[in-house]
Amino acid sequence: MILTFIGTAGSGKTTLSGAFGRYLEESGYSVGYVNLDTGVEDLPYPPDVDVRDDVTAWEIMEEGYGPNGAIVESYDRLLQKVDAYVSGITKLAEEMDYVIIDTPGQMETFLFHEFGVRLMEGLPSPLTVYLFSPDILKRPADFCFSRFFSLMVDLRIGTTTAPALSKIDTVENLDRYRRFLDDIDYLTSRLKLEPSTQGLLAYRMCSSLPELAPPTRVLYLSAVTGEGFDELETLAYEHYCTCGDLT
Amino acid sequence: MILTFIGTAGSGKTTLSGAFGRYLEESGYSVGYVNLDTGVEDLPYPPDVDVRDDVTAWEIMEEGYGPNGAIVESYDRLLQKVDAYVSGITKLAEEMDYVIIDTPGQMETFLFHEFGVRLMEGLPSPLTVYLFSPDILKRPADFCFSRFFSLMVDLRIGTTTAPALSKIDTVENLDRYRRFLDDIDYLTSRLKLEPSTQGLLAYRMCSSLPELAPPTRVLYLSAVTGEGFDELETLAYEHYCTCGDLT
Repeated sequence: MILTFIGTAGSGKTTLSGAFGRYLEESGYSVGYVNLDTGVEDLPYPPDVDVRDDVTAWEIMEEGYGPNGAIVESYDRLLQKVDAYVSGITKLAEEMDYVIIDTPGQMETFLFHEFGVRLMEGLPSPLTVYLFSPDILKRPADFCFSRFFSLMVDLRIGTTTAPALSKIDTVENLDRYRRFLDDIDYLTSRLKLEPSTQGLLAYRMCSSLPELAPPTRVLYLSAVTGEGFDELETLAYEHYCTCGDLT
Repeated sequence: MILTFIGTAGSGKTTLSGAFGRYLEESGYSVGYVNLDTGVEDLPYPPDVDVRDDVTAWEIMEEGYGPNGAIVESYDRLLQKVDAYVSGITKLAEEMDYVIIDTPGQMETFLFHEFGVRLMEGLPSPLTVYLFSPDILKRPADFCFSRFFSLMVDLRIGTTTAPALSKIDTVENLDRYRRFLDDIDYLTSRLKLEPSTQGLLAYRMCSSLPELAPPTRVLYLSAVTGEGFDELETLAYEHYCTCGDLT
């Protein structure tokens, strides 16, 4: 089964890919690893498929591109080979119990680029885990934003997407995060108290969540302590064996 | 008045900032320019406020960071000075008829970073233009994604946000884009025909759009031909003079 970690730079994709992969291997599973980041130097796992074999952001910067331009250009070049990546990853998934896909450092070079969209469309039923870290959750509207962003990932790349709070070892009051993320009714009632235009939009968007998508439980993960890995394993199992019911 | 261009790398923010600024200057307005991109080399406008005076992605890469890490780290460092940027841009807005803000190359380093959120919160009623280019619009669900993303920008940074299709000089069939983007009912009826789970989600999300936010017209812009600049000027005027009614 194919498991894809997606999230902004710094959300913990690469560290989690390595740590969750080791957890699965220690449980006796065979695990294949895919690196899609053209700008990474060191990886905490041995990649079986690696875009850097074709192109790196570094070599494009040597041609005179800036860092932003080099990252985008690297995926423009990879687009010509997207079918080969689909075949390679599909083959790896046939050989291994799990394939873990670590996506580009900047999420938008995956979500907003034809390379990411076409790759994900071509793969057999990948489960995507949308990672967001506690430091982007300050105000009630931010929790609504994160829950909604998981739907946006689903809408864009067409995969079943589970939202996951990463780096939970760095927060002391996890219960506060859980209450806002797990209980949409509670979050909605808090947003109703916000007098701003932004608060009203958040309230409306949050209220519409239950109608837009089936209830999906939020994962709470730490690559440091391994917390939540058993739940992620269960979720992946449910995705493949019960046709995507992730309530 | 403050006008902010936001969008992914390659959506045309920097080119439009320069071209629309020149258009305003030629119309007799005074225009101030703000560059928030730490990774850009050449700008088509003379910045009055420039984050590169404090930090550049290049100098951080020289410390050994990769391109993704350097970009994120540059905004971590800028965060300490966010109040000074709020003051500087507010002062510029008092002196000039227009202030144009050109945001970071990678949109997520603005939307998902406290620097971007706190900066926008601090500024007096900025109007944000969310730019997306025709190359990300392939399937009906992509149009839904783009309309929704404009709401996500609003939800995250709390500014009135207008969606704008950029680079319209590069497409031949603009009418097709307009029909999908302007007519939510038409888009919804097309999405209803999509049999996939993704199609169902897109249909539900698109159907909910009219309830979530007041109808906002989409702009169609070309930095090459100047098409749409008059409409953008009108929209900015309406935003400041009629309290954000952008129907």
